[in-house]
Parts: sequence; C-alpha cells; structure tokens
Amino acid sequence: MAPSATEHKNKQDVDLTGQAIEHKLAEIAQLKQSNSSDKPQELDASKLTYEYTKSPRPVPASIEEACAGPETICTDHMITIAWDAETGWAAPELRPYGPLSLMPTASVLHYATECFEGLKVYRGVDGQLRLFRPDCNARRMLTSAVRISLPAFEPKELEKLIIALMSVDGPKWLPRDVPPDSYLYLRPTMIGTQAQLGVQAPRQALLYITACYLPRMNSVAGGMRLHTSPEDMVRAWVGGFGYAKVGANYGPSLQATLEAKQRGFHQVLWLYGPEGYCTEAGASNFFVVIKSRETGQVQLVTAPLDDRLILDGVTRRSIVQLARERLAGEVEVVERRYTIGELQEAHAEGRLVEAFAAGTAYFVAPVSLVHHRGQDIPFPMASADGGKYSLLAKSWISNIMYGREDHPWGVVVPEKAE
Amino acid sequence: MAPSATEHKNKQDVDLTGQAIEHKLAEIAQLKQSNSSDKPQELDASKLTYEYTKSPRPVPASIEEACAGPETICTDHMITIAWDAETGWAAPELRPYGPLSLMPTASVLHYATECFEGLKVYRGVDGQLRLFRPDCNARRMLTSAVRISLPAFEPKELEKLIIALMSVDGPKWLPRDVPPDSYLYLRPTMIGTQAQLGVQAPRQALLYITACYLPRMNSVAGGMRLHTSPEDMVRAWVGGFGYAKVGANYGPSLQATLEAKQRGFHQVLWLYGPEGYCTEAGASNFFVVIKSRETGQVQLVTAPLDDRLILDGVTRRSIVQLARERLAGEVEVVERRYTIGELQEAHAEGRLVEAFAAGTAYFVAPVSLVHHRGQDIPFPMASADGGKYSLLAKSWISNIMYGREDHPWGVVVPEKAE
Repeated sequence: MAPSATEHKNKQDVDLTGQAIEHKLAEIAQLKQSNSSDKPQELDASKLTYEYTKSPRPVPASIEEACAGPETICTDHMITIAWDAETGWAAPELRPYGPLSLMPTASVLHYATECFEGLKVYRGVDGQLRLFRPDCNARRMLTSAVRISLPAFEPKELEKLIIALMSVDGPKWLPRDVPPDSYLYLRPTMIGTQAQLGVQAPRQALLYITACYLPRMNSVAGGMRLHTSPEDMVRAWVGGFGYAKVGANYGPSLQATLEAKQRGFHQVLWLYGPEGYCTEAGASNFFVVIKSRETGQVQLVTAPLDDRLILDGVTRRSIVQLARERLAGEVEVVERRYTIGELQEAHAEGRLVEAFAAGTAYFVAPVSLVHHRGQDIPFPMASADGGKYSLLAKSWISNIMYGREDHPWGVVVPEKAE
Repeated sequence: MAPSATEHKNKQDVDLTGQAIEHKLAEIAQLKQSNSSDKPQELDASKLTYEYTKSPRPVPASIEEACAGPETICTDHMITIAWDAETGWAAPELRPYGPLSLMPTASVLHYATECFEGLKVYRGVDGQLRLFRPDCNARRMLTSAVRISLPAFEPKELEKLIIALMSVDGPKWLPRDVPPDSYLYLRPTMIGTQAQLGVQAPRQALLYITACYLPRMNSVAGGMRLHTSPEDMVRAWVGGFGYAKVGANYGPSLQATLEAKQRGFHQVLWLYGPEGYCTEAGASNFFVVIKSRETGQVQLVTAPLDDRLILDGVTRRSIVQLARERLAGEVEVVERRYTIGELQEAHAEGRLVEAFAAGTAYFVAPVSLVHHRGQDIPFPMASADGGKYSLLAKSWISNIMYGREDHPWGVVVPEKAE
C-alpha cells in the first residue's frame, strides 16, 4: 500500500471529525476557483431576494409580554436557503415569517439531521444595532453542520445573511426608543429535508434564519441552583458531539433538566465519567473561581475544549480572552478538567470564590449552589446580582454589545429605512 | 429526611431513565381509573376518524421501482394524533398522506425531540396480511418517547392504530397478487411540535404513522463488509440513549457511515470504549457465531441489553429466543460483551463460524468481513446467501411473517373491503 493511502486510512481510523471539516473547507475553496456552471452552487448572500410581508404584525410592548405565551414570537420575516446535493445552494430568500412544509418522511424528523446557532442583536446606547462576534457563530454553525452530515458553506455568507435580516426587521422590532438593554434573539437553523427514509446523509436541506424574543434568563435572584446529573445520564462523551450545536445534544438532556426543576433547581450541572468532571451547566458553559490551595492564587477555571465534550461558547471564549487581558496579575485563567470532588474540597477548605454559567441565552448567570448526591456546595455571592468576577465579565461584554465600548467584537448592522 | 424521600433522591441520582418509565406507566394507569373530564385524555384508538383521499395514487409495479427515486413513496393515507400537555391526546385521524406544517421554531427542528419505530407488514402465503410482533415496537416506542421527553401512551393503542392504517391501505398497496416475500414498511413517528425556542420538554407533540416502500437490504451478494468505527466517533455510551430509537442516535452516525461507504464497505461496526466492545452494525444488531476455545462449543454471541448501549431489536430478540428453543444442545446462545480483539483471536485460531446483522430494515444480513485498523477479519460464508445459522434464523422468522408457520408472533390484520 502506498504511504499516502496508509496515512489517509490511519487518519480516518482515529480522527474523522477533524478530517471532514478540513475536507469540506477545501471543497468550498475549490468551488470558488471553479467557474463551471455544472458544479453545485456555493452559498452566496449577494443573491438574496426580498419578498416583504403584506400582513405586518404588531411589536409586543416588552420582552416580558412577548414571552408570556406558549409560542415564540418572531419578527415579520425570515431568510430561507434551500440546498440540493446536485445543484448546491439556491438563492437566499427573505420572505414573510411562517410555517415550513415538510414531508412526514423528512430526514430531520427521524434522524435529527439538524443544527442551529443562537446570537443576539442589541440596540446600543448610541442608537445603533450591533451583533456580538457573529463570525464565531457562523464558523461554529459550519462545524455543527459537518458533524451532522448537513452541507458545508462559507461562514462569511451566513454572517452577511444574518445582518441582512436584521437590516430589514431591526428598525421595527428593536426600535430606537426601546428600553436600554433590549435585544432580539437570532436563530440560524439547518435541517435535512430530503423526504426519504433510510439512515443516510440527506441530499436536500434547508438553512433558515429567524429572529425572535427570548426571555431574559440571567437574573435569577440570589443565583442559580444546579443539581448534578444522575449517574445514568451523560450529556456528551469523548468521541461524541458535545462540541457541536446539534439537536442531538438537547432532546436527550430534557428529562434530567425537568427532574432537576421539579426538585427546585434551575439547571443540571453535567458531570462526565467516573471522576465526575464538571462540563456544562444546563446548556451553558460553567466557570468557577477558586483559590489555589498551594499558592493562594485566584483562578478562573472552566472545562477545556480539546476533548470536545463542551460547546465552544462565544460568551465563554470572550470571558476567557478578556479575563486574560484585563485581570492579568490578579487572576489566573485556566482551561482544564476539574471534578465535582475538587469543588467539594475547595468548599470544605473555604477556597471557593464564586461560580457562574455563561452562554448567549443566559448571558452571565451567577450560581449560588451546586447539589451533588445529597450534599450542597454553596458558592459565595457578593450581592444578589453575583460575585465580583461574574459582574465584571458581564459589564465588559455588555459594554461591547451595547456600544458603550468601541470594540471590534461589536459589529454594527446597517439599517434599512422603514 | 424521611426514608422514602431519601430513596427517591438516591434513585434519581443514579437511575433516572428506569424511574421515569415506571412513573409514566403509573400515570397512565391512574388516568385510566379516573373519569374526570378535566384530566388530559389518554391515547384512544377507538376514537379514530376516517377521511379518505380524493386523489388516490397509483401503486408502483415493484419494490424496486418504488425505491428508484430520491423520495420515499408512501401509501394513500397516514394516521396523525396531536397531543397537548393540557388536554392530552386528541382523537386519532386517518387522513390523506401529505406534508406536515411546522413552525420554524418547532421543538423537533432544534432539539431533536423525536423518536420512531420501524416494522413491516407482510402478505402471507395464505393471502393474509400480517405484522410481526407489533407489541414489541409499540412498547419500545413508549420507552423512546419517555427518554426524549415526549408524551407517554398506552402501547396497545398504538398497536391498534398501526393495524387500522394497514386495514385501509393494505388491500390496495400490498394486494393479494403481489409477488411472494413482499412487504410494506410502517414508520410510527413522534415529534415535538411546540413552536417555542428554549431547551425544555415540548408541551405539544404529534404522533403519526406512515406506510411506505423500503428497498430490500438483506441480499448483499457475498455478504456485507463492515468497517469498524473511527476512534473519535462513538455511537452510544453508557448513560446515553443507545437503547432508544431516537433521532439523536442516527444523525451523528451518518458521517462515519458515509466514509465507510466511500471506502467500499457497507456499514460501520460500532465499537465501544478502549476495550473495543462490538455493539451494532450500522443501525442493526450484530451476531457472531464462534467456537469456544476451551470446549469447542458453538456459541451464538450478541451484545447484551443491560448496559443500554444497543437497541433492543425485535429481530435480535426473536433470534435469541428461537435459537434457544430450536438449537438447544447444538448452539449456546450468549448475550455478553465481546471485543473486536476476541474476533481477531478467534479468526487467527480458526474458530469463527459466521456473522450476521439483524434488524427490521436489513432483516438477517450475512457479514463476510470486518475491517479493523488496517486488518481484515473474514467470516466464513457457507454460500453466497450466508452461513447455516443466519439462513436458519431467516427461515424461522420469515415462516412466521409470511404465515408458513402459525405462531403467536404473526398478527393478522383484518382488511377493509376495497
């Protein structure tokens, strides 16, 4: 066997995921260089067509009012882009928000060929609309799509489409006179639509982007209380897909979450392995601040990305980066595996400083308690709003989101005149 | 704390799945005894309403013709049953087969709140339509639904609805003059339909049953060739949901399957853990027949159910039961963990007898080769159709399916006059 064939085989035998993403990106690069009209078309935001709604709907008075009912309220429009294995990506369409028609045999309804992203658009103190690091979401969406055998795309094009939807619906649905700290939530989603039963990668898919209201979730008075996961339920595992934002990570987690809520807790703290490694809090990343037993050094600790168990959260990533820059000398930022036993020890020895969950939906939510196998691990809360470091992280990031700090992570959305 | 509360807590801490299923079944039993009209309604097949199609479609000439296109061909009708957390199960409706309308925010499209079943209906040698052990599918559907936080139901009612659909569509779509060994494939499916974003159990769902053509897949000439899973991809894990027929088990498996196919293999043999335990072949159960090194005893070996890694397949279960009855003294039937290393050893020592995959879609499909990390493990094939034991298993079960043997597992469908 030729050496190159052996290399290929060995790589697939151990690391299919990494190889597949490299492969897909190479394909996209190749498509770009080719001018052949026979080749499947790339995703191209510049082809966007506009069909405006003829029945515009009223804007709710507040996020609270919008989220009171059993259905998510979306804005007037959505963007949809159909994909077919033969022809590639069709022209993106901005069109009235409304139901999708799917055959009962559609891939997504049986085999969970689906992935999504979540990001918010903010109305800044200067009156401008901003997205926060949409490039991170677009790139992660590509990773998720490849992992779940949905089609690849150039992430920059998805970012442009997200901006295009907000250019149209932002002025009405997040107007300039909205209260401070207001936002809309954007949900890019991709689903396998091919109407064929059989366990196989779908040859038709739909990428769509909706914008909606989502309840504020970062203000649990007195902090969130977490319950560790039961022994017979694992969120993600090495060799799985915990790092990807695919539907398959969420449905299976609902049962433990419901049970934790029925017992008076807010979320599940997902443990991994017999060691009890702490991974995620609900569907958010989890941070603890502890003092080192050896040196007394204050450490901001969160689970690492390299074993692919946890989501590469945009809020997580931003906190890690900003804390390294802005707390250098005061706090050591550490991405490493840590166990629930370590937290119990640190509690017993008075070394726990604080804890918080971080994610787009929950933003930065202080945690006051973790319950594990009948025992409580309380975390200090400097105030009902959280400890020093969660409040710092929240202010750094929200200053960028709301334009109080000029920063490259805040991407301004140009608005169409209403 | 009272002892009962402690017991409850400890149980949830270690075994949430088992507890939840018991709990749901107890709820159903309670609902049955209650006559209150305020309570959510149970699933009740006797409330089925009939709306026949006004545009009946032509029946394909053969399974091969039906399966040549990119879309699955379904029969004229489907059954749908809506569920709402407040009101329970609505009256089941038999209605024309057609698209479903789902909001872009529907739970199933984001969080993989979906599960399904697969079973076939057979036109027997005596002209009767038969299902094979539909009670097993209905009970497994309940297990899957509970695991993925979809509503529970009385399995017997689902079984009645499956029969009702076949009573109507069977006579036309699987007529009495169909070639021998013909069948239709039935796909009960449940999806979370609540149009609300947020990681939570859906409060609205839809159970539906369709019937369609599915390609014959048990006749790979010369046997199936399997490629072991890459190290960075695990199908299921202890504490996960490998035992449930939920979408989340399938989408994430597609990438490795596609790669294996591109290399000329038919399916992936999914290994588990550093030991390399053999679990499933593609989406089927996997059996090996080996001679014991110590005693020379022929053993039919398959992975066990108790660690919940593999699907409790109806074909698997039937083969285990029939082989224990009908091969007693000749073959020892063993459900236990076994590793790919054991198979390599048995090959080296000439103790491999045969191997086959078993499931509803593939039925009993002989395996001629497993490729693992650059090495081949060939399995003997007595003929191009398979070895002695796979052929025996196939004949036992197909005799029941096609009414050549009268057996309680073959359930006759009463047919409506056309």
